[in-house]
Amino acid sequence: MKIVIVGGVGGGMSAAARARRLDESAEIVVLDRSEHVSWASCGLPYHVGGEIAEADELLVQTPEKLRAALDLDVRTRHDVVGLDPEARRLTVLTDDGTDTVDYDALVLSPGAKAVRPPLDGIDSARVHTLRSIGDATSLRERIDAGAGRAVVLGAGFIGLEAAETLAARGLDVTVVELSSHVLPPLEHEVAWRVTAELERIGVTVRTGLGASSIEQGADHDTVVLADGTRLPADVVVLSVGVRPDTAVFEKAGIATERGAIVVDDHGRTSTDGIWAVGDAVTSTDAVTGVRRPVALAGPANRAGRLVADDILRPGSARPVPPTVGTAVVRVGEMTAAATGATRADLRAADVYFQTLHLHPGHHVGWFPGAEQIHMMIHFRAGDGVLLGAQAVGRAGVDKRIDVLATAVRAGMTVADLIDLDLAYAPPYGAAKDPVNLAGMAASNVLDGTLRIWHVDQLEEVRRDTLVLDVRSRDEFATGHIPGSLNIPHTELRERLDEVTAAASGHPVRVLCASGVRSNIAHRVLSQAGFDSASLSGGMLTLRAALGATADDLLISTAPAASTESSSVA
Amino acid sequence: MKIVIVGGVGGGMSAAARARRLDESAEIVVLDRSEHVSWASCGLPYHVGGEIAEADELLVQTPEKLRAALDLDVRTRHDVVGLDPEARRLTVLTDDGTDTVDYDALVLSPGAKAVRPPLDGIDSARVHTLRSIGDATSLRERIDAGAGRAVVLGAGFIGLEAAETLAARGLDVTVVELSSHVLPPLEHEVAWRVTAELERIGVTVRTGLGASSIEQGADHDTVVLADGTRLPADVVVLSVGVRPDTAVFEKAGIATERGAIVVDDHGRTSTDGIWAVGDAVTSTDAVTGVRRPVALAGPANRAGRLVADDILRPGSARPVPPTVGTAVVRVGEMTAAATGATRADLRAADVYFQTLHLHPGHHVGWFPGAEQIHMMIHFRAGDGVLLGAQAVGRAGVDKRIDVLATAVRAGMTVADLIDLDLAYAPPYGAAKDPVNLAGMAASNVLDGTLRIWHVDQLEEVRRDTLVLDVRSRDEFATGHIPGSLNIPHTELRERLDEVTAAASGHPVRVLCASGVRSNIAHRVLSQAGFDSASLSGGMLTLRAALGATADDLLISTAPAASTESSSVA
Repeated sequence: MKIVIVGGVGGGMSAAARARRLDESAEIVVLDRSEHVSWASCGLPYHVGGEIAEADELLVQTPEKLRAALDLDVRTRHDVVGLDPEARRLTVLTDDGTDTVDYDALVLSPGAKAVRPPLDGIDSARVHTLRSIGDATSLRERIDAGAGRAVVLGAGFIGLEAAETLAARGLDVTVVELSSHVLPPLEHEVAWRVTAELERIGVTVRTGLGASSIEQGADHDTVVLADGTRLPADVVVLSVGVRPDTAVFEKAGIATERGAIVVDDHGRTSTDGIWAVGDAVTSTDAVTGVRRPVALAGPANRAGRLVADDILRPGSARPVPPTVGTAVVRVGEMTAAATGATRADLRAADVYFQTLHLHPGHHVGWFPGAEQIHMMIHFRAGDGVLLGAQAVGRAGVDKRIDVLATAVRAGMTVADLIDLDLAYAPPYGAAKDPVNLAGMAASNVLDGTLRIWHVDQLEEVRRDTLVLDVRSRDEFATGHIPGSLNIPHTELRERLDEVTAAASGHPVRVLCASGVRSNIAHRVLSQAGFDSASLSGGMLTLRAALGATADDLLISTAPAASTESSSVA
Repeated sequence: MKIVIVGGVGGGMSAAARARRLDESAEIVVLDRSEHVSWASCGLPYHVGGEIAEADELLVQTPEKLRAALDLDVRTRHDVVGLDPEARRLTVLTDDGTDTVDYDALVLSPGAKAVRPPLDGIDSARVHTLRSIGDATSLRERIDAGAGRAVVLGAGFIGLEAAETLAARGLDVTVVELSSHVLPPLEHEVAWRVTAELERIGVTVRTGLGASSIEQGADHDTVVLADGTRLPADVVVLSVGVRPDTAVFEKAGIATERGAIVVDDHGRTSTDGIWAVGDAVTSTDAVTGVRRPVALAGPANRAGRLVADDILRPGSARPVPPTVGTAVVRVGEMTAAATGATRADLRAADVYFQTLHLHPGHHVGWFPGAEQIHMMIHFRAGDGVLLGAQAVGRAGVDKRIDVLATAVRAGMTVADLIDLDLAYAPPYGAAKDPVNLAGMAASNVLDGTLRIWHVDQLEEVRRDTLVLDVRSRDEFATGHIPGSLNIPHTELRERLDEVTAAASGHPVRVLCASGVRSNIAHRVLSQAGFDSASLSGGMLTLRAALGATADDLLISTAPAASTESSSVA
């Protein structure tokens, strides 16, 4: 059996290593067009910023080591330029000219390449993508040589990793993003806190517009934005997305969908004897069932392993699971992470869902160092199956998202989240962990014990209802919705007649700082006969969801004090 | 409806708060014999050590705040001394004498009290338990007054929390534990690393023996151990276990099992109108089905909430789930955590299981700051259902145990662990997260791709097989099993005839530093026809499992160098 693998990182190398462990007798050839295989592409931004000092540290394996440990025949600088599926033969361009490589089984792991928008000046030498070690090295050299101003085009995960490491390196960094907020896969109220952190570490954020051209100068380039803003740039990092690198295989007749290779649940392509994995293939979304390419290292590695199983143990290999799609990014001192579906995913898939926000401490408030986790979850209306979750904060975020990712994979409901026995000691969590709390509140929403309203209903709420703010007088004074009535939750039972008078038959919409006290108030009101509801996530979510417009809306009648710390307790 | 709750912390207070949120009209009375309710018992060691400066910070709620927010009638210094279930009446001792309190529904949350072994001198004023704020305050006062030497009797979770905070405070601390290792609920090879960390932070650890007496002196006490060791002590912290505080209720005819109140899966006792929750009740273990009291805050809080549901929404309350039993402790810079069943639990329950050890980095090795996680999992033979997991290390431990606790709750198999999409970016994990790696290796064990041997087979392995050490020559020289053959894994394929000659028909048992390279070697050997197996967890597990005896066994032929760092890659 001769197994040939095209692309020697991620899923391709996982397939090669697994194939060897399963079969000592197989001939296993790995072809890669670059100089390196099995290198850490996720580390590129950190090498640019200097956190990873030497590019060599990113070379997890070398062809020599792979030969010695796994008897792999790794051929770098081998660019596959043709495929004949009938003959089971690849045409390969090498330093010595054109060669052919035959196979019994072929695994395609060609990955994706950077999208290069057709802008004037995009080919300037100062414009760098971040897809290879060479890319990182040349960008790093420019910075080492004194580049002081960077413009990052695209505020996705890699763009922001580059931005934060460049800012840490002391560069003056501007991030430009066409979407309305940074990290478009995140919900806007989560992304707002990432933007705030970017600004705190000195990065300028421009969203909702793109670059229109790049003017090349002798001393520096100038990135011209759609609104005419001119940003001088010693380096430009281009990170506006990727697309599957599949032209050669498409031409050979392998079925694709919008450029991505179509595979079944064993990674098999439309063509006999050919499997494909990684960023270049379509994946099925575990929550919505939508098929699309997913550029995540974990699923690629897993699929590579399962493809080797399918080649060498046909009939007994487990299927490649649908993708839950979990992601995390460090920005300054913040961590932002997401798993499962977003609002937009769920709306596009016509799933009827509810959303809940909360802001628990990452551990008990009475132990020093508690940090708020700003969390939100989506769950299916009716049965409460967890559909997605996002969180941002300074500590404990990745842990909660990993637990929730596990719950999504298991098909758990929000009630199941209540029942999770999570590790508690004061430095680590709480007897009611943030995940448990999310389950409790969402279960209350599901069974009607808690009725919530959302920031996007603010206009109609202000028009048609009494807005009741149950925070303390001091908190109320720091900033509140115009026209809202303030009755601290501890006084509510004695002052229900004031609510009756102010509401005069209209519904009552309650809010507090984070949603905890307004939930209690809602229970008091609803049992007293009011049409009431509690604001999901309270003022903390309102400020994040409204962003800059919150400052215009809210009336402050006291010396400013942050409301941020009020709900860690 | 008048609901009376005995015990105003944990499960009791959760029941009270939930009851109010469900029913504004209920009369809710909380009785507690102490001065405080709703205080943070888990914080006591940290107040003693000074990390939590003021005892007041542990008072999460006060009777006044609970009255204002939740209309609870909280009565402290109310000690329940009698119960008449027929009359639905409690007898209560207060500062003003004896009183009675009637109820419609009664929730018992009496908790547990410290076990006081019948030792001479146990009643010395220098002997402190850590069950109440008063306990913590008096111990703290003694330390503030200059106590310099502490003996901690009992190395369970609370004992070790006390030991590490006292050591951080500068005291000379000795921990004495009757079991063969600290943290008896942890497996011995995990606990060994906790012991090493205790010693690193200056704590003296004595295991496998107890105190025989405490001699009271004018200036200090002396703890005399079973082997005659005399430990001078300015303070003694007594932390050898707890037992349910249920005498009053047992006497009233409520069914108990070894002192713990027996409840059904809605928290109902044997007596009509009486529920019970928390440390004083029996819980069902989610993995083994065994019933026993579990002193964990999370399950207690959850049960309290569900009991309120059962009282106020009879027929529609969800059952109290069985307990997975997740726990975590910080010791110095280490975190140790466990979830699910241990070897001893599984053996006692006659479950046929396999165990696997691994030592992955908490994040990718090429990103600065990677720390090893020393992990082990137990899974059911045959179907691979995850039964338990433990881990210890400097970072990322609580996250992996929480993910694995979620997997245990979901009934996941080890193959399911492979499929978990966990959040990966270089500062947080790896494309193959430690949890994924555990799933991969365990799946290989389950389907026979990987065959492992364990340290407890070392004697027979040394007697009956060829021990093949596939580490590098330099690693081998730092310490190896006498009589073992060293062939680096990269040379194995070319040197198989040497293995044949050395084995001369006997089986081959392979090992490396952590189990990764020996797994590859095992595949080479088994496909070449050898009866081979790979040591679970490699030398890292061997050293931890053998403890001090490893130093006697292993032969070193080179200047000492730690093997600890060799498998983060």
